[in-house]
Amino acid sequence: MQYLITGGPTREPIDQVRYISNRSSGRMAVALCRAAVDAGHEVTLLLGPCAAAPPEGVRLERFESCAELEELLDKHFASCDVLIMAAAVGDFRPVTVTSGKLPRREGAAPNLALEATPDLVAALAKCRSERQRIVAFALESPQHMEQRGAEKLCLKGVDAVVVNPLTTIDSESIDPLWITAAGGRDAPGAMSKEDFATWLLERVDEEFKGKARRHEGT
Amino acid sequence: MQYLITGGPTREPIDQVRYISNRSSGRMAVALCRAAVDAGHEVTLLLGPCAAAPPEGVRLERFESCAELEELLDKHFASCDVLIMAAAVGDFRPVTVTSGKLPRREGAAPNLALEATPDLVAALAKCRSERQRIVAFALESPQHMEQRGAEKLCLKGVDAVVVNPLTTIDSESIDPLWITAAGGRDAPGAMSKEDFATWLLERVDEEFKGKARRHEGT
Repeated sequence: MQYLITGGPTREPIDQVRYISNRSSGRMAVALCRAAVDAGHEVTLLLGPCAAAPPEGVRLERFESCAELEELLDKHFASCDVLIMAAAVGDFRPVTVTSGKLPRREGAAPNLALEATPDLVAALAKCRSERQRIVAFALESPQHMEQRGAEKLCLKGVDAVVVNPLTTIDSESIDPLWITAAGGRDAPGAMSKEDFATWLLERVDEEFKGKARRHEGT
Repeated sequence: MQYLITGGPTREPIDQVRYISNRSSGRMAVALCRAAVDAGHEVTLLLGPCAAAPPEGVRLERFESCAELEELLDKHFASCDVLIMAAAVGDFRPVTVTSGKLPRREGAAPNLALEATPDLVAALAKCRSERQRIVAFALESPQHMEQRGAEKLCLKGVDAVVVNPLTTIDSESIDPLWITAAGGRDAPGAMSKEDFATWLLERVDEEFKGKARRHEGT
């Protein structure tokens, strides 16, 4: 199968040197790529600006901004069977990008007007073909994981969501909640991102094959 | 001599996962540390969040925000003979840091209120002792390098400023303008950050020793 995996943060420029970003390390995506390659899949990795070393054996493309990731998804989505959106795509970006460098003025710091970035995974979910499966990631406060995870599953129209507590970002480990559009729910407990990658790939294989079989049987 | 060298960007948190940062790679500071160690100096490196590998043989402390760098400078500045401020300290930071994660609301993106960060190098220049020398870095549009460099030298009260064009950030090379409070001026041309580090250390040694001799002679 063809896997398309995204990882790392986005950088949304404020001016030529400054940007808004987030703490995503890219580790989860790299672990997912390794597990997918080991399972015999063909893998394309779209990776944001982070120090994580891209694994061998994948087709690699780099992005910085949400807009650049959107272009890469447009290019690669059609040919994938499974998309795993592990990238921490920025929700906001400056409305205008200042050319050069925003000057420092003592006592007169600017207000930075932000706008929402496009919801990439929701847009892809709308235009996908019957065979394509999409797994989204969500990062939520521990007390809101169940509720927000269910909301994201529905709002984004994806097949499954991996919900993680905020502390997961830039961490070695993960404590995820897995929920699927077909009503599946599992909380496999705290584990390394590498172990979770193996767990997730098996689960994707099992659930989506199951779904395909059910489709064929009806 | 005791060298205190700062490098890399700062990260100013917006909430628990997002931040404002800049493209500084930390390469210049790492190159300066290597050159200083090779010249037989004792070196403390204060390094921001970047992928640059800290060199062997230095005392290393890490920071994220401007406030954390300020604390480390308070701790280490008194014992240094020369401070080289190669860190790209953020000029702005969010006025308030949201706990948890700022929610995404379609069509209602927030305005981010910013404030100026404290001018760390100017504050240190004011309270330094007679023996201490300070070199600041400035990043300016190519057409403003001369003027802004001279302004920074004066406003910050440092001994020398290395002015670079904006394109220097996250680059392998540098094309600097060196200006000193004593009236020195040099533009050694484009070169690697490693070669410039050697050039700068020799220049610091020469100019500041010269200055000390002139002081003794008067």
